[in-house]
Amino acid sequence: MTGVYWLTNLNYFFMELKQMANIEKVANEYLKIHEHACHMVQESDGNGVFSHDIWEKELGYGVTKVITDGEKIEKGAINFSKVSGKYSPKMAKTIGVKGERFAATGISSIFHPVNPLAPIIHMNVRYFELDTRVCWFGGGVDLTPHYVDEKEAGFFHRAIKQICDNYDKTFYQSFKKQADDYYFLKHRNETRGVGGIFFDHLKPNKEKSFEFFMKFTTELALAYPEIYVEILNNKAKKPFSNNEKRWQNIRRSRYVEFNLLYDRGTRFGIDSGGNAESIMVSMPPVVNWWYNYQPEPGSSENKTNSFLKKGINWLKY
Amino acid sequence: MTGVYWLTNLNYFFMELKQMANIEKVANEYLKIHEHACHMVQESDGNGVFSHDIWEKELGYGVTKVITDGEKIEKGAINFSKVSGKYSPKMAKTIGVKGERFAATGISSIFHPVNPLAPIIHMNVRYFELDTRVCWFGGGVDLTPHYVDEKEAGFFHRAIKQICDNYDKTFYQSFKKQADDYYFLKHRNETRGVGGIFFDHLKPNKEKSFEFFMKFTTELALAYPEIYVEILNNKAKKPFSNNEKRWQNIRRSRYVEFNLLYDRGTRFGIDSGGNAESIMVSMPPVVNWWYNYQPEPGSSENKTNSFLKKGINWLKY
Repeated sequence: MTGVYWLTNLNYFFMELKQMANIEKVANEYLKIHEHACHMVQESDGNGVFSHDIWEKELGYGVTKVITDGEKIEKGAINFSKVSGKYSPKMAKTIGVKGERFAATGISSIFHPVNPLAPIIHMNVRYFELDTRVCWFGGGVDLTPHYVDEKEAGFFHRAIKQICDNYDKTFYQSFKKQADDYYFLKHRNETRGVGGIFFDHLKPNKEKSFEFFMKFTTELALAYPEIYVEILNNKAKKPFSNNEKRWQNIRRSRYVEFNLLYDRGTRFGIDSGGNAESIMVSMPPVVNWWYNYQPEPGSSENKTNSFLKKGINWLKY
Repeated sequence: MTGVYWLTNLNYFFMELKQMANIEKVANEYLKIHEHACHMVQESDGNGVFSHDIWEKELGYGVTKVITDGEKIEKGAINFSKVSGKYSPKMAKTIGVKGERFAATGISSIFHPVNPLAPIIHMNVRYFELDTRVCWFGGGVDLTPHYVDEKEAGFFHRAIKQICDNYDKTFYQSFKKQADDYYFLKHRNETRGVGGIFFDHLKPNKEKSFEFFMKFTTELALAYPEIYVEILNNKAKKPFSNNEKRWQNIRRSRYVEFNLLYDRGTRFGIDSGGNAESIMVSMPPVVNWWYNYQPEPGSSENKTNSFLKKGINWLKY
């Protein structure tokens, strides 16, 4: 009996050691992306500089990099965090799986452009461990234009699909559908933007290893600033009117509604006692709530609204 | 058996009839307040005029009155609604009581002033019926200054206490504590403003009748515009700077965070399939999210932050 007990305990010890090593591995990979993404975006902007804050709380630490009042970026952020602690009932409800203790690391990023003709972009990749018993990857990338440009949406979806295809030919279609369902404002009956991909609970298995998913999420996060810089450069210098800026601020209010009412990342951050300023850094810099604003029929604002629905095949544009 | 069955059914029939009569009674009282409040605020503003929208959805109807770009009020609204329908599991979770069908009527109102030195005010009174089996009243009034003015907060709390005292000497202390707990941003560890009162699940009983609570909530809602107009008139013409306006927009972001992350009324409205524009009309017109904004030590912005905590006895000011 003692031998079995000892062996079982040793087994747990090695399991924990392996898991600890895994979260360190992912965290290190994600931290490298952090540097890379800031560098790329800063270079493209030409004016804005990322501030750099390190926060520490009981449950872990994070690095928040924020760019404000840039030439092209009005406000943008790239957050890294690595946390662990007691897995609360609230977190269990948000995540949908029971457990006792958790560990998580992730990168989340958002950019709000100056020019209303350019879109907002968002990316998140994350790794989660529960009770050193189960682990999974999650994440997504999605584009939210203030003015839908079909060709731009097509370019974005093709770029994302290419990354997915490198790993599994079924990923894009499955994750694209999940994005349509996830980035959806039920109370408005509209999608947040033109979607992208969303995935969660990707668990390493016999066919797809831990390293496989780590590489997939890393590649996605690495490609993200490149894709955005290309989109941004296309639009940043186009002239725009005050009315277009106002429309941008109105569309931004929907972004806030989504993030605070539905977004699991925001809710997880708040329920797990995360750093409020780092969670809220995704919020747009200036937002307008304009009661019952109805764009003119035939206007490009109206056209944008008509595109805010699920199931559009953006690859055809 | 048939007789008993018949009698039981007749009993239910009369119960339903009585309850239907009750919700009509409350709805009629609340609709009158609607008119009164708009009239008072419009007169005080002198410039802005309330628009008037009636919405109808499967579950009921509402009247949304909105004032924008007034002389003193930048954006304000008074919503009336009367709805009934299937009581979903989501609603049960928000409300905390199980049931099958619900009926509800209420008034909710909010005013965002032009002048950052004037406060935001919010009021809500509501009546709720579940399965024609149980009913209760709920509501609250609270004040959210962008700049805390202790005397103003004192005036506000005294005015509210006076109304409470007319009905029950224990109401104010009990409801004030509930407001401190309810109007609280956990992720920021700060109260929304200087509080006020909050109450829920006030069920008619042998001592306090349905009429008692109907009158209490009606009186509160009737006094609300008077109290606000007095506060507003004190502040509306004071000069203010761009920096103070900016601070107002930053403080407004906390208001949005509260309403979308915590407010049960907002969540109930969304979960019950309410009218999105009427729910979101409480949102401030212009909002700023400014990453990690830290007011100067000794500034009035800093003083305001120091007052955003529970348990302050405002009556002493």
